[in-house]
Amino acid sequence: MATVTAHAEPLRWENGSLLVLDQRRLPTEETWIRCEAPEQVVDCIRTLAVRGAPAIGLAAAYGVALAAAGDVDVEAAGELLRSARPTAVNLSWAVDRALAAPEPLAFARDLHEAQREADRRLSELGAEHFAKGDRALTHCNTGALATGGYGTAGGVLRAAWGKDRLSQVWVDETRPLLQGARLTAWELQKAGIPFKVVADAAAGGLMAQGLVDRIVVGADRIASNGDVANKVGTYPLAVLAARHRVPFYVAAPVSTIDPATPSGDQIPIEERDPREVTDDGKAFNPAFDVTPAELITAIFTEAGVLEPPYAEAISRVAQPAARS
Amino acid sequence: MATVTAHAEPLRWENGSLLVLDQRRLPTEETWIRCEAPEQVVDCIRTLAVRGAPAIGLAAAYGVALAAAGDVDVEAAGELLRSARPTAVNLSWAVDRALAAPEPLAFARDLHEAQREADRRLSELGAEHFAKGDRALTHCNTGALATGGYGTAGGVLRAAWGKDRLSQVWVDETRPLLQGARLTAWELQKAGIPFKVVADAAAGGLMAQGLVDRIVVGADRIASNGDVANKVGTYPLAVLAARHRVPFYVAAPVSTIDPATPSGDQIPIEERDPREVTDDGKAFNPAFDVTPAELITAIFTEAGVLEPPYAEAISRVAQPAARS
Repeated sequence: MATVTAHAEPLRWENGSLLVLDQRRLPTEETWIRCEAPEQVVDCIRTLAVRGAPAIGLAAAYGVALAAAGDVDVEAAGELLRSARPTAVNLSWAVDRALAAPEPLAFARDLHEAQREADRRLSELGAEHFAKGDRALTHCNTGALATGGYGTAGGVLRAAWGKDRLSQVWVDETRPLLQGARLTAWELQKAGIPFKVVADAAAGGLMAQGLVDRIVVGADRIASNGDVANKVGTYPLAVLAARHRVPFYVAAPVSTIDPATPSGDQIPIEERDPREVTDDGKAFNPAFDVTPAELITAIFTEAGVLEPPYAEAISRVAQPAARS
Repeated sequence: MATVTAHAEPLRWENGSLLVLDQRRLPTEETWIRCEAPEQVVDCIRTLAVRGAPAIGLAAAYGVALAAAGDVDVEAAGELLRSARPTAVNLSWAVDRALAAPEPLAFARDLHEAQREADRRLSELGAEHFAKGDRALTHCNTGALATGGYGTAGGVLRAAWGKDRLSQVWVDETRPLLQGARLTAWELQKAGIPFKVVADAAAGGLMAQGLVDRIVVGADRIASNGDVANKVGTYPLAVLAARHRVPFYVAAPVSTIDPATPSGDQIPIEERDPREVTDDGKAFNPAFDVTPAELITAIFTEAGVLEPPYAEAISRVAQPAARS
């Protein structure tokens, strides 16, 4: 157990181990898991002790560092880490780079710092698109807990609040695992930003009543045409936003863009245990959905704000894959 | 405690009392509440021990019968029953008629029987719109538990299954109170109809992947222009269905139509306790939303299948209000 500070870090490197804040137990309990081997990091990623595309990439980079420091086949550990979850591309992106780095721990620490910087930058850029009095809706959790930094969509909300360009946040509870109700609400409460949690299905009625000025969400993978895979329930929000002319923004670091994925159809959608939905498991539980680029008003990245046509905008900022 | 039969009745009149199946405890426990005074019926309606627009209308009619049989101001009891919940018009419709009837108990029993007949008829008519192999999605609970009869949207699904015009049902879990996961899944299981429960926010992804052939839902109030108030989350489904060209049907008895409500804007939307959404109550919890008529493919009623333009179709079947 350790004390959690105002803006919780999901990960901490300490005495040669990776400490992972167990997000499954938040906000009730603040428990840390000590990982001394890459398999433990894989387990934390698979079971969602750590989640959020940038944060799992960072955890995996530290996992490679643990492998490199121990008596372990580093390439095999990398493969295990890369396959812990299929949808977020940040995971294989970070593993590939950590494996290629001369000192994986130094790489992980640099990535951690770079992620903080990227979050700050994209949050500042995104907040410029907000206006005083805005009521913003968000889905899932995309704050510091999801990135190891300042947050993506959650960072944009914090930055907008800091600039007096936000009056309140509607937080989709985000079934089945309630990352909105548990994690985003907890972060907003700590930041002093006014919010109300709503059932995911209530967002449409809110928009119809003119109660939502902007929507901002994170991303698990962005295809090279601008299609975005994100937490299940994102796509319906984008469709409703288009109907109600509510700007729909995605906030994500450039590492979320996968130049090797031409469109959303090619993004693998993780199917999780149906018992996350019902006790008896008579359920279907896709963890993500795909929002087509045509429904996205802008994508906030640390390399700039991308606007349609996305294929062009993305080709200017996306980094080539580290490995073929 | 009483045994629940294959197609559970939500209400039963027995020895001068109204027995209400406590749906809050389903499917874990099958407990009956004995109501001997109208206030107890009001309490059952308010707390959702009995729910579903047609079933609460029926419960209220029996409530008037309890008032008439006891030493109670019948008009005052009617007013209390009418105001137990604001959105479903079946409630005031049934109370008005029970108050006007020479023998309220006979009226309630006749209504019970008429509701069974109406459900059967609209279910048969609706099932004709289904085709072999169809995968249908539904929201909330609209089976026998919601009507005291055969079900509205749930009845259509049963009838379609009986005609071999249905292969499986996607059941929206229906947050916050999980009427889909608890009640609809339980009814479909008993009826032997294949189903999977999904998080409400997953329906969009299912449609995008071509996994939904039809959507059928119930209604709490239908305005005279065809706008439909129904469980929160219905409207997003209708918007998504239009985008994916999935037929979107509403199934409801004629008593759900309110000729005195010109459009959905005038339908009062019940706001329920935020603690239904989060333990700490930092939530906003509208129980219903409004689906505009333009998004509805057809409305199945016992008086026929209504199709656009709805104002005309509705004026042909709607009954005038019993009281001004």
